[in-house]
Amino acid sequence: MKVVCNTEQFGKKLALVSRGVSARSTIQLLGGVLVETGAESVKLSATDVDISIRTSSPAEVEEEGRVVIPARIFNDVVRSLPGGQLRIEHDVASGTVRLAAGEKEYSIRAYAADEFPQLPEFDEARAFRMTGEALVDTIEKVSKSYSRDETRPVLTGILINFENSKVRMVTTDSYRLSIKETELATTFEGERTALIPARAMQEVQRIFTSSDEEQIEIDLSENQALFRIGDVTFGTRLIGGNFPEYGRLLPNAFERKISVNREELMETLRRVNLFAQRQNPPVPVSLAFSEGEVEVMVRSPEVGEAHEKLPADSEDEFRISFNPGYLIDGVSAVDTENVVFKLNEPLKPGLIVPNGGDGETDDPDFLYLIMPMRDPSQG
Amino acid sequence: MKVVCNTEQFGKKLALVSRGVSARSTIQLLGGVLVETGAESVKLSATDVDISIRTSSPAEVEEEGRVVIPARIFNDVVRSLPGGQLRIEHDVASGTVRLAAGEKEYSIRAYAADEFPQLPEFDEARAFRMTGEALVDTIEKVSKSYSRDETRPVLTGILINFENSKVRMVTTDSYRLSIKETELATTFEGERTALIPARAMQEVQRIFTSSDEEQIEIDLSENQALFRIGDVTFGTRLIGGNFPEYGRLLPNAFERKISVNREELMETLRRVNLFAQRQNPPVPVSLAFSEGEVEVMVRSPEVGEAHEKLPADSEDEFRISFNPGYLIDGVSAVDTENVVFKLNEPLKPGLIVPNGGDGETDDPDFLYLIMPMRDPSQG
Repeated sequence: MKVVCNTEQFGKKLALVSRGVSARSTIQLLGGVLVETGAESVKLSATDVDISIRTSSPAEVEEEGRVVIPARIFNDVVRSLPGGQLRIEHDVASGTVRLAAGEKEYSIRAYAADEFPQLPEFDEARAFRMTGEALVDTIEKVSKSYSRDETRPVLTGILINFENSKVRMVTTDSYRLSIKETELATTFEGERTALIPARAMQEVQRIFTSSDEEQIEIDLSENQALFRIGDVTFGTRLIGGNFPEYGRLLPNAFERKISVNREELMETLRRVNLFAQRQNPPVPVSLAFSEGEVEVMVRSPEVGEAHEKLPADSEDEFRISFNPGYLIDGVSAVDTENVVFKLNEPLKPGLIVPNGGDGETDDPDFLYLIMPMRDPSQG
Repeated sequence: MKVVCNTEQFGKKLALVSRGVSARSTIQLLGGVLVETGAESVKLSATDVDISIRTSSPAEVEEEGRVVIPARIFNDVVRSLPGGQLRIEHDVASGTVRLAAGEKEYSIRAYAADEFPQLPEFDEARAFRMTGEALVDTIEKVSKSYSRDETRPVLTGILINFENSKVRMVTTDSYRLSIKETELATTFEGERTALIPARAMQEVQRIFTSSDEEQIEIDLSENQALFRIGDVTFGTRLIGGNFPEYGRLLPNAFERKISVNREELMETLRRVNLFAQRQNPPVPVSLAFSEGEVEVMVRSPEVGEAHEKLPADSEDEFRISFNPGYLIDGVSAVDTENVVFKLNEPLKPGLIVPNGGDGETDDPDFLYLIMPMRDPSQG
């Protein structure tokens, strides 16, 4: 392989693809980027087996070929070069790739491409298309409550459902649950559901956000999902197993619906959380509602106490406690002026939903279910 | 103790003093800031036994007293408050400090001040004064080559010498040695020498840089140094033991004096170092001089090779190898257009000095001595 390309242009594509490289794999080949000559271009691919990223970059092809180049040193060198031409030559005999830019010459130990995994092909016929912004906003909303614990794989995913003209995403780590529905400009035929690793969806979000594209094409098959964003194709395996039947977790009715100014509540929670954070076991934050007011409190035996009062449209005295981090996640995912708490008893799950404008929202497009904590001072 | 102060003004002073707090000490008291009432002010002190910081902040004193408040939560709370008044009250009976700002109330578990260490007093009579900028620039120059290894304490210090109208600082970690002399506007009576922990000097540098002051007052005694920068007093213990007799390490004559453009060399070193970094044992960088040119090379059996050529005013073929990180430290400490290498044999120490303008500097105000490495390819 012999190609010549523009250092800066190639460097951007290389950096993008390298996010797909396996950082920790014991298989050295997966720590590399597959470089293949194409028609007046080089194709770049990387995979860590779970995800894959492919793109291409313009190049003058002097000799065809394919080779796998260790991603870290390859990126480090290309990024450190001043602009200008970059020549990439694979010397099969010595197993090295020579990079040359003016008087600068580097040779990197490379791998033969034969064993590089075959990456899935994007199926145009099966694919559908949607606004990228709608997709990434929806991912953002549910990204707080997926589980980081790999021992229960189904909870590390985002359940994504396309139906009629809506996309719905759901995540839960069993302590809280987020549901976000977004109306789309397009209508789908039939229903499609997939459980996609949350980290992979965040990668889709990142690729879209750093691109100039408006649309995302999606190709869902039985065990994988492919996303096409301009000239970048991102693939991920799907998660097997059954996602919890979350519909059953949602209470049908609530005894209390209480609205609080979101910005004020967030600032208060951030401050009182200073008394709860870094404590193990977690110290709860208590919301003590009374007529027209809520007192937000944290009591840590080790650090001290915090008390702040805020206006709230509550009517009776009612006290409920939550894990402060989980509460902050829920309140921060709401983007209306007020946040509405829908509550029953102190130890029954509550909902955090956006404010519909009239103070009540019976069919919100976002909801965050949160399990309360037992308040130690309540015995 | 009962005081009222301005949140923002107090918060800045508190943050500054808290840098003196011991982060890891098992003595909880040293994790706190001593707050004492003064004349229309509160005095703030912190120490980790090795260093101490003291300052004061304006306050309305309603009741005198002194108390030690855990630094982290104290800072977290004060920093998170919006501007306005902050009331600080020590309740001796409950052993807590109450912070109040409007409807916000926090109580922090505090410590009695009785056991807080007595901090050294600044001795006006013994003190002398110098331009802060001269001091911090000099610290900066020698800050690369002190040792981070606490097993040889004398090497973790900066040897500081005041004599006539000069300050001289020296550091060495036994692989390299930095000497920087700075001419001052003032003249000292007699000579003073102290071995000060390098980290403490960097703290002085930081305090000065974030202040509006121009002068630093220095009070050196037998086992400690105090620095006064405006209303901040910073103290540090001195290091005992004998600093190496560095004068003996400096060669008297050199066979070669070679000048290279500093900026070009730095860029080259940063790139070729990509092939050497994160390797254990360290891979050397080799400088192969020939007439009018130097080839900078790194050969890593694991990663690959880098070769770059630069103009140099060398006359004969000569090759020498260094630890790339140490070489970069030396070249980056020079701030003239060219950097001059003074070299003898390939395994004898070399000097890196600034360029005097005519290509030679026989009495440079900065020098960096560096031990070469054996080049593996030279057998």
